[in-house]
Amino acid sequence: MTADIPEAARALLDQAVVVDLATVRPDGGPQVNPMWFLFEDGLVWFTHTDYRQKYRNLQHEPRVAISLLPEGNPYNYLEIRGELDRVEPDPTGSLYTRLAERYGQGSVVPPDAADRIKIAIRPTLFSGNALK
Amino acid sequence: MTADIPEAARALLDQAVVVDLATVRPDGGPQVNPMWFLFEDGLVWFTHTDYRQKYRNLQHEPRVAISLLPEGNPYNYLEIRGELDRVEPDPTGSLYTRLAERYGQGSVVPPDAADRIKIAIRPTLFSGNALK
Repeated sequence: MTADIPEAARALLDQAVVVDLATVRPDGGPQVNPMWFLFEDGLVWFTHTDYRQKYRNLQHEPRVAISLLPEGNPYNYLEIRGELDRVEPDPTGSLYTRLAERYGQGSVVPPDAADRIKIAIRPTLFSGNALK
Repeated sequence: MTADIPEAARALLDQAVVVDLATVRPDGGPQVNPMWFLFEDGLVWFTHTDYRQKYRNLQHEPRVAISLLPEGNPYNYLEIRGELDRVEPDPTGSLYTRLAERYGQGSVVPPDAADRIKIAIRPTLFSGNALK
């Protein structure tokens, strides 16, 4: 089931903020990493490479949790629970380039473009002070 | 085993930054929440109440992951893996008060002081760009 997107969440999802992505490792322990993201077509998109630990985690446990703390106002936070919707190959690193632009880093083609994938997360629950 | 604390990590742990705490829910999915913290005696301390989901998560899965993104420079991030070291009752909410002061919120006694506990996490691994 996909969650309806509250209006206050939409405004935050438009911001170019580094979010924390929590996943579960195959050994059952948690992992959390800062990530660039893009919200599009109702999905949260991340760029990644196909050999990294986080991707292995997602294949093992498709559920994730995302924390978005707006810059200058971390108390107006948004939490998103979600599940892996799909993974798409991105051998030109196009999502990385798009995210680099979105985050003010210029137009960059990543050196590991050949290994790049797009990870799409389908939100299942929105919560946090931002929605209160 | 407790991890040695890299010098660059120490400097970040002194900052009053809202961190993201990732835990694992009893159903095996991840959870991530923004938290105030204090680093003292080699442990990462959080204030909490004894009935909340995060505490239930920790009793079920004592491993955690913490993400610290310095304000204004999220690329200089620090990740801390750790394990629940101990929980102490805090019926006056003293740690909450101390954290509120540390985070510039004034001297506040929480309304739920009677239910407050201190959660101590023992770091087992430091990583992240901050250490590079």
